[in-house]
Amino acid sequence: MRSIDLNADLGEGFGPWQIGDDAAMLGLVTSASLACGGHAGDPETMYQALSEARARGVSIGAHPGYADREGFGRRIIPMPPAAISRMIAAQVGSLQGVAAHAGAQVRFVKPHGALANLAAVDTEVADAIARAVADLPGGLAILAISGTRLEAAARARGLQVFSEVFADRGYRADGQLIPRGQPGAVLSDATEIVERLTGFLASGQMPVAGGGSIALSAHSICLHGDTPDAVHHARALRAGLSQAGFRLAPFLPV
Amino acid sequence: MRSIDLNADLGEGFGPWQIGDDAAMLGLVTSASLACGGHAGDPETMYQALSEARARGVSIGAHPGYADREGFGRRIIPMPPAAISRMIAAQVGSLQGVAAHAGAQVRFVKPHGALANLAAVDTEVADAIARAVADLPGGLAILAISGTRLEAAARARGLQVFSEVFADRGYRADGQLIPRGQPGAVLSDATEIVERLTGFLASGQMPVAGGGSIALSAHSICLHGDTPDAVHHARALRAGLSQAGFRLAPFLPV
Amino acid sequence: MRSIDLNADLGEGFGPWQIGDDAAMLGLVTSASLACGGHAGDPETMYQALSEARARGVSIGAHPGYADREGFGRRIIPMPPAAISRMIAAQVGSLQGVAAHAGAQVRFVKPHGALANLAAVDTEVADAIARAVADLPGGLAILAISGTRLEAAARARGLQVFSEVFADRGYRADGQLIPRGQPGAVLSDATEIVERLTGFLASGQMPVAGGGSIALSAHSICLHGDTPDAVHHARALRAGLSQAGFRLAPFLPV
Amino acid sequence: MRSIDLNADLGEGFGPWQIGDDAAMLGLVTSASLACGGHAGDPETMYQALSEARARGVSIGAHPGYADREGFGRRIIPMPPAAISRMIAAQVGSLQGVAAHAGAQVRFVKPHGALANLAAVDTEVADAIARAVADLPGGLAILAISGTRLEAAARARGLQVFSEVFADRGYRADGQLIPRGQPGAVLSDATEIVERLTGFLASGQMPVAGGGSIALSAHSICLHGDTPDAVHHARALRAGLSQAGFRLAPFLPV
Repeated sequence: MRSIDLNADLGEGFGPWQIGDDAAMLGLVTSASLACGGHAGDPETMYQALSEARARGVSIGAHPGYADREGFGRRIIPMPPAAISRMIAAQVGSLQGVAAHAGAQVRFVKPHGALANLAAVDTEVADAIARAVADLPGGLAILAISGTRLEAAARARGLQVFSEVFADRGYRADGQLIPRGQPGAVLSDATEIVERLTGFLASGQMPVAGGGSIALSAHSICLHGDTPDAVHHARALRAGLSQAGFRLAPFLPV
Repeated sequence: MRSIDLNADLGEGFGPWQIGDDAAMLGLVTSASLACGGHAGDPETMYQALSEARARGVSIGAHPGYADREGFGRRIIPMPPAAISRMIAAQVGSLQGVAAHAGAQVRFVKPHGALANLAAVDTEVADAIARAVADLPGGLAILAISGTRLEAAARARGLQVFSEVFADRGYRADGQLIPRGQPGAVLSDATEIVERLTGFLASGQMPVAGGGSIALSAHSICLHGDTPDAVHHARALRAGLSQAGFRLAPFLPV
Repeated sequence: MRSIDLNADLGEGFGPWQIGDDAAMLGLVTSASLACGGHAGDPETMYQALSEARARGVSIGAHPGYADREGFGRRIIPMPPAAISRMIAAQVGSLQGVAAHAGAQVRFVKPHGALANLAAVDTEVADAIARAVADLPGGLAILAISGTRLEAAARARGLQVFSEVFADRGYRADGQLIPRGQPGAVLSDATEIVERLTGFLASGQMPVAGGGSIALSAHSICLHGDTPDAVHHARALRAGLSQAGFRLAPFLPV
Repeated sequence: MRSIDLNADLGEGFGPWQIGDDAAMLGLVTSASLACGGHAGDPETMYQALSEARARGVSIGAHPGYADREGFGRRIIPMPPAAISRMIAAQVGSLQGVAAHAGAQVRFVKPHGALANLAAVDTEVADAIARAVADLPGGLAILAISGTRLEAAARARGLQVFSEVFADRGYRADGQLIPRGQPGAVLSDATEIVERLTGFLASGQMPVAGGGSIALSAHSICLHGDTPDAVHHARALRAGLSQAGFRLAPFLPV
């Protein structure tokens, strides 16, 4: 019986503000990437998400991003690569500190937003992230998109790398995501999402824009935790994958 | 030959702003408590201070405080004790993360400002700090003022505790500092400071306001890094202590 | 035909985060107090709320609070009264600046959270706020709870003062609110809320805990914009007040 | 007798941190551009700088920049032009609010750092700033570098525009500054600075790299307030300009 991981980016509140329904999502995913106080998160949100993830047996990752709450880490903040390393070390270290207090353990790192987009295509930024992760304790892995500079940089630094595909995003023939705002960029029909992913998991072939498909590798399926339909999609996907004979399990054991 | 430690609170800049002359002070002290991004500090200032401390063989502590840059951690921000634990874990974890990247190691924790003042007298706050420190990895010790609730809470949690006296502050007969603004609260004459401390180290008796003295214990002498005379006082104290036969060495080996 | 104002505290998002349904509430209230970038709000949230309020003919107030987003302005941040004046001037000035750009006008000031609670009982803080408001341009009024120090300080500074009662909070015999967490502190039944307020508006007598009632004055009824039932309560109250013969109109013309 | 203005960017501290010697500089310049809480500044620093400028008869400008304290407004934060307008309105409005409380008046706006550099060459950003300034009350002028898009956009919006040259920066033959890091970018000799500027003011011709000169217009000479030599240069320049027969006066009366 093959197993697959479902991951979502959670713990993305700040102070009195919340995004998405963390409690519901943590009952549905097998891995969760938690904000570290950069683009979102604070000691309280980290502690709540870490404690709940631990109680649910969810595997925990760090989700560092540009220290830009107002822009939610979706804007590129110009920084030398060395400063990116230090920012990653500070943010992931912070989540590790709170995890130690919550009796939980951080297992992997997945960059957020504009930083992740840049690390996918920029060798220096990718290596800055990989280097910081390699220096941190705990044997942290990297969760990345297959074929990116980040994947290559992480392997070059000797890190374990896991890859993800997106549940609700359309792909182009070159394996890149269809940019938001273009037709087919975001899928909203739960049945279509489930069929597409069970097909991909069975064949290794992801349908692409314009017809045809592309070979992709995936240890995990990324759900978006902050959309109105997030919980609904996660439930449908869990059910669909089980019915199709897949076991849901984290790519790294808790 | 007896040894004594000199410590200062450093790394208290933020972004473009600096306080004190960290580079000069790190050439004079044997231990340094570094801001963790709460009342001061950011990934860059942490990295710079950690790297310089490591290069100079200075023993490194974390200096967490209320997350209140505008008030520099000198205002009590009302928080439940459990939230204080999480804040301490996040801040110290952040410094530990950057330390791992800088090839340095955090050895102890010394709370800053209003949080330190509260932890000196409030059992719950003291225990919230001690608990977070005990949960963190790395076998962190506590640097505290002798006789405080923090010292007691740290011992109760099984932490190693070291105590400090202040180089440039006057004491009352009950062992408390003379509050700032009152006569004798702050000493500014380098010769007087050196004589007072060599006398104390030889006898264990600290002179107090109104005459007489009190028995105090000290593993370290705290210098203030942010006053105009900080570097001058540190140099005079190093020379005076050496002349009086003391060896300057960190209370925890690097 | 008597008229009454309905007000709510809105524009309390920050960056990607929102609280409550501002668009719906701005279609129901006649006055809105908007966050100014202190406890909540940023230039974008201010502009959106100001533009929508202007389009809806809603009278606009500034809702300044402690500059403590993590605590949402619900914690007292120790500050000298003079620093409170400067904070109020900076925050209200900021909203006035964005209002000028949005073609809107700020008509009144209503302090938020912990600052409002302190200004209700502390003469110096109340006067610090009143003084800053008096110094600002635009002939700003104060919206306060009747009988508070803020009301008195505002009158002493020559400011126009309007008073509010709370739609969903229980009152004690001394006119103070029943503290949250105690029985009767928060009302959640829409029918009860409507009956209680139409009764009060007709008689000037507000029912109090333990039976009986107290005379209160009110130019406005405050709704909470951030509760799940906020929109439902606002709709019920509008309907109930209209049925009872009241005209809904802002206490200050737009 | 011809008059000329000396301006500097001041009030650029934050919380406990300071940059430069504002008190000394405010005794030497005739105009000051004050940080507005974006790249630097808070209600306290604004109030102190405004009060001191008012006491000294210094003409006051607002100095808004990207809301990026960690980067001191020296990094371009990607923002739509409309969001830049709202940010400018919020920041300048904030300084105007504190000015009203300090009995002072803001007379002009001069963008800071990366925002100023972008507004010099980007028509949309330039207009976004000009539009926000035009919408604000108080008849604010713009202080800009001659020949920039900002100058053109401000004139197109009907704003009064004043131009500045830099006291300590070298110019290229096209009128642009020699980029920092290149030879001749920064002048450090006070005598050379004074001779160069008195020559320019007499002739309207500014010496450029590689020999020769270019015609520039200037209502004001910009001094940098944050360099170690700032006060020394300002004193030398005041003396040199007086000796050369110039009267020092703000370009806009106080």
